[in-house]
Amino acid sequence: MYACTFWRLLRGEEGLIRRKVAELAGVSEATVSRVLSGAGTVKDDTAKRVMDAAKQLGYVPNALAQRFALRKSGNLGVILPLLPKVNLFSTFYFSEVLSGIGVTAKQRGYDLLLLFREADEARDYASLFRTQKIDGCIILGSKDTPGERAALAELKEREHPFCLVNQRFEGEAYNTVDADQKMGSRHAVRHLLRYGYRKICFLNGPPEYSNSLDRLNGFQQALAEAQVPFREEHVLIGNYSRKSGYRQTETVAALIRSGEVDAVIAANDRMAIGLMQGLKELGIRAGEDFALVGCDDSDVSSMMEPQLTSIRVPFYEVGCEAASRLLDLMTETEPSPPFEVKLPVKLIERASSKTTRSTAK
Amino acid sequence: MYACTFWRLLRGEEGLIRRKVAELAGVSEATVSRVLSGAGTVKDDTAKRVMDAAKQLGYVPNALAQRFALRKSGNLGVILPLLPKVNLFSTFYFSEVLSGIGVTAKQRGYDLLLLFREADEARDYASLFRTQKIDGCIILGSKDTPGERAALAELKEREHPFCLVNQRFEGEAYNTVDADQKMGSRHAVRHLLRYGYRKICFLNGPPEYSNSLDRLNGFQQALAEAQVPFREEHVLIGNYSRKSGYRQTETVAALIRSGEVDAVIAANDRMAIGLMQGLKELGIRAGEDFALVGCDDSDVSSMMEPQLTSIRVPFYEVGCEAASRLLDLMTETEPSPPFEVKLPVKLIERASSKTTRSTAK
Repeated sequence: MYACTFWRLLRGEEGLIRRKVAELAGVSEATVSRVLSGAGTVKDDTAKRVMDAAKQLGYVPNALAQRFALRKSGNLGVILPLLPKVNLFSTFYFSEVLSGIGVTAKQRGYDLLLLFREADEARDYASLFRTQKIDGCIILGSKDTPGERAALAELKEREHPFCLVNQRFEGEAYNTVDADQKMGSRHAVRHLLRYGYRKICFLNGPPEYSNSLDRLNGFQQALAEAQVPFREEHVLIGNYSRKSGYRQTETVAALIRSGEVDAVIAANDRMAIGLMQGLKELGIRAGEDFALVGCDDSDVSSMMEPQLTSIRVPFYEVGCEAASRLLDLMTETEPSPPFEVKLPVKLIERASSKTTRSTAK
Repeated sequence: MYACTFWRLLRGEEGLIRRKVAELAGVSEATVSRVLSGAGTVKDDTAKRVMDAAKQLGYVPNALAQRFALRKSGNLGVILPLLPKVNLFSTFYFSEVLSGIGVTAKQRGYDLLLLFREADEARDYASLFRTQKIDGCIILGSKDTPGERAALAELKEREHPFCLVNQRFEGEAYNTVDADQKMGSRHAVRHLLRYGYRKICFLNGPPEYSNSLDRLNGFQQALAEAQVPFREEHVLIGNYSRKSGYRQTETVAALIRSGEVDAVIAANDRMAIGLMQGLKELGIRAGEDFALVGCDDSDVSSMMEPQLTSIRVPFYEVGCEAASRLLDLMTETEPSPPFEVKLPVKLIERASSKTTRSTAK
């Protein structure tokens, strides 16, 4: 049997309760009826006053009825890619960002609704708001595709609060929280140049991610600053998985053996580790035969042998910042200009890149 | 302004739509009114018929109104501990289990609502159902405490569908999905005995977790089977963090140096790795000076040097199984007896335990 708690409780004493609530809230009994039934039109703050009065009188309506009346879900949505064959939460990037979002949402009284989308699934983010599943959302692992652009434009147009993490869309001004990836690559290049390495290969991620482009940009800039020529053929592309780093073993081994390359910067630690393991199998050792710098400073970077030099990216803080800014925005009454936050990164020196070029074999 | 989509659409054409929906659903107009207003009592299947008819007529009510009428949230809840200073999703255990739950929920059309609870927070899981935030829930990282027992007993009493992962409560028959941790310890002991190690130290997790007790149990059983005496003082306790393994360095180093211990089994890889790093700093090497077996077979176990022998625990599959069984249960009309599933584990041999005792220093 289905029955509405709200009305079951009101039945019998309906008139009495309505009268008391109306009195306390300072509104008419008709208004109370409209709010409690969800029928008709009432101003947001009036509806809230009625709900508060009902609550104060010891009558706690079920949360769904309340949310129905106030049109709030109490949920912060997180849109995530459903990656086949990848245990998403096991990747350092997603797990850290999500931890930051989760802790912040909890502190602010929100629950986290995870919404997985498949690569080929039609994007309709606005419907999540229309159906009141969420009050705001953070989008992770977004890619620059026409479908994604259309879905985001609709959110913007309908003024639904959302925030992108680690992804920009050229020509659009969306709320974004990111780490300063461009600066990360510059740190890595400068570090290698300081140790005498000048033939640097760059193992990047796919160009659909704006952060891949940022990294490449920083790499090129730092080379230009030092007047070291940039060589297109020394940019390799993986997909941020360990395997995709491992797959570059033969290519990089040939470049190192021919003396064309003496150092590698990888766009994340997983690819760096895959490559490092592959080269080790061929007897080419990071920190001895070439210098290697990863990116993320994930927990495994200090478990490797040699330990991996890496760019520390504050992903946890990125998650906190995105959630915190978005929740602020959701409680603001005045519209504010879009925010674009970039958190600083730093280089953590370890054994994989420390040997100076002159002492390397 | 707040307005209910439902009624705004019905206004004007209210009578006409009500008549059409009633006709198609084969119910009275009064029933249609009751369902659409959420007021009064209607059988579940009747309510569903009315909603389906409204939908078929091209009238799609907003999801919250629909859920309100049908009392379904479309959300699968996952209750998680909020661990201070631990990025929860970055732990292999939680990240793998959550990935399994997430993928399964997505396949079945459910969204995942993450509910973090703090250690000292009052437990009231039943309210999540009462307020229709979730239709069912999976509880991770549950501990055997009086508060937890009371909260679970209430869920059971109110017949709210839930499932525990990796935790049993003695004397209670709850739905549980677990890995066969007891068998895992037995595999580890037998493996070490086969290689000639007989003085085995066991680094376990806290006893509030039933899986810690299961591991200890398996450890004792396997020793008894081989007629190797069990020594209470060779059981050490950590908290499953890497640091807590590292903190046992001095104790274990003394035991190894005095010849009292020649092998260590750790209840997870993180503690094994912490201990391995600590001992390495003292010049005591896993796979040479003593044998080391971890548990979880997390991705780092094959990145270590030496690579870590470990018990492969199918956490991802545990998550899939828990979600899948629970979702089955939620659609069943007849009550079924509680399920208790144990998924098999296996030992993955690597360098940290392979050297036979006779050739070890």
